[in-house]
Amino acid sequence: MTGRLSDEGVTALHGAGGELMGKFLAERVLPLFQLRSAGPIGLDQLDDGAVVDLPPGHLVVTTDNHVVKPFLFPGGDIGRLAVCGTVNDLAVMGARPVALTLGLLLEEGFPFSDLERVLRSAAGVLAELGVPLVAGDTKVMGRGELDRIAINTTGIGVAERVISDAGLRVGDAILVTGTVGDHGMALLAAREGFKLATGLTSDVAPLWPLLAPVLASGGITAMKDPTRGGLAAALNEMARKAGVGIEIHEEAIPLRPEARALSELLGISSLEVACEGRAVLAVVPDRAEAVLSLLRDHPLGRDSQIIGEVIPTYPGRVILDTGIGGRRFLEMPLGDPVPRIC
Amino acid sequence: MTGRLSDEGVTALHGAGGELMGKFLAERVLPLFQLRSAGPIGLDQLDDGAVVDLPPGHLVVTTDNHVVKPFLFPGGDIGRLAVCGTVNDLAVMGARPVALTLGLLLEEGFPFSDLERVLRSAAGVLAELGVPLVAGDTKVMGRGELDRIAINTTGIGVAERVISDAGLRVGDAILVTGTVGDHGMALLAAREGFKLATGLTSDVAPLWPLLAPVLASGGITAMKDPTRGGLAAALNEMARKAGVGIEIHEEAIPLRPEARALSELLGISSLEVACEGRAVLAVVPDRAEAVLSLLRDHPLGRDSQIIGEVIPTYPGRVILDTGIGGRRFLEMPLGDPVPRIC
Repeated sequence: MTGRLSDEGVTALHGAGGELMGKFLAERVLPLFQLRSAGPIGLDQLDDGAVVDLPPGHLVVTTDNHVVKPFLFPGGDIGRLAVCGTVNDLAVMGARPVALTLGLLLEEGFPFSDLERVLRSAAGVLAELGVPLVAGDTKVMGRGELDRIAINTTGIGVAERVISDAGLRVGDAILVTGTVGDHGMALLAAREGFKLATGLTSDVAPLWPLLAPVLASGGITAMKDPTRGGLAAALNEMARKAGVGIEIHEEAIPLRPEARALSELLGISSLEVACEGRAVLAVVPDRAEAVLSLLRDHPLGRDSQIIGEVIPTYPGRVILDTGIGGRRFLEMPLGDPVPRIC
Repeated sequence: MTGRLSDEGVTALHGAGGELMGKFLAERVLPLFQLRSAGPIGLDQLDDGAVVDLPPGHLVVTTDNHVVKPFLFPGGDIGRLAVCGTVNDLAVMGARPVALTLGLLLEEGFPFSDLERVLRSAAGVLAELGVPLVAGDTKVMGRGELDRIAINTTGIGVAERVISDAGLRVGDAILVTGTVGDHGMALLAAREGFKLATGLTSDVAPLWPLLAPVLASGGITAMKDPTRGGLAAALNEMARKAGVGIEIHEEAIPLRPEARALSELLGISSLEVACEGRAVLAVVPDRAEAVLSLLRDHPLGRDSQIIGEVIPTYPGRVILDTGIGGRRFLEMPLGDPVPRIC
């Protein structure tokens, strides 16, 4: 059964820096990754670090630990999630991913078959994006010292123009690139055993191919990916940092009916759970429709919507227009209601 | 008691991306780090990534997961270890550390006091080196899902001239910058309860201040830090990669008497356990004495020794001259005999 610890799985020696680790990396890990360098010294050299030849632009760096539970979930796994999580953080900074590092933590007994599946997923996204894995590290913890697997990914990217999450200006339109909360709701459904009933899958996907043409077209003042804490956390953070208000029209927020139903069933708001393949954009008003149209041209962005605008009142707050005249604050969540979401 | 999980420790919400995590980072984590940016967007902005202004040179990247057990050990802790481990990987590539990222994994209930102690250690080394922490990530796993704490550090450095671990040439002298195996033996002693008896402490320290003047003086053909698998693994890796033999004179290897005694008692070779503040250097013959003297000028290098030389015979192997005419292969260890060493 997938995910069960095995006596033929990873052992302490696979992370112990000697002969067995070297063989393990050379035979089982490195060949999974098509692109293994971004300069004269890369993964194949198994040196103490990698040398990265940088294209011109601003260097952007981001790091993420991934501990998602279960590590295989509807629509993805921790490998795909780890790469997407990190390249998406680069993308919403306006940066094209240039190189990635991967730090593996494994529980002793973690099956090689699961490890291969997870690494193949990670490698698949990287190959799709043309991004090399340039450096890595593997450590093995004893049985009971770690719940199976955790992955750190650190990404290096280059931005022609850096986009912060604080650049919103009054009048900007607020766009979201697709349905909200699918990742969190799919995980919840899987954990609660609602999988067959809902068919919900995670939205986990790399955003750079969607965002690159939009960035090139201009007019973006701020971006953020709504991961932990979902759309509610992302919007609140953006409003606070820019010292502006944001008004959101609830009926404009794209939501899958299955996510809406599950949200009502479990009493958890879709707006507060993580997406892993969506971005929130602030766009100057006269570019909003053009950006929307560009986003919708891409398969990942076909459900994009203009969901609101930046307002001069209520600085630092997010107002939810619930229709028929109702308005309330959309509060910063205390935290994502789903633990180990990413 | 230090290290015990606490009801007043970290909770799931401290890693859940919302209000509580933001408050926790702003109040308890960020202020511990003196230097928080290497460009216009750094740690304080809590944006999706950091922007790093790079000085001229070759960009070097390295990543490490740290899972050392116990996380507080004689001579250091996981915070100091994490920073040193990563900046040392940069240093032995010839790279000055420019920026660091830090990914925290915490078990729910991990005491804030221990977290502060660990982060203060990390911050202390960074401040000493003048290196900013530019980005981070914190995730909390449930009780029993992680043994207390794991830390990923990813380092970005810049090298005027990159030094690989494969550059050895026949005739080069092999130097080590201090006593060997102290980190591994100190951990073993602590675990086995021999602490008071031995007084051994880890050698964990940042190598850049020791190596920078040596690099500037020239003549270094290869460098490596002997971490997991110790001196034996480092030398074997260097010999294999360069396709040369290395002959080492056993009596020249600096060893603390306490480490030697413990090694005999436990039947574990000091040459196979990790150092965390030592480097192995290959140096062109006519620069060897000058480099030795430069190394000894620095407090971290005062026990430096020339321990051997690169030979044309036995390519890919390491020969240990045991004195009085004895010679044997120093084999690549299967793995470091001490689990969770770093």
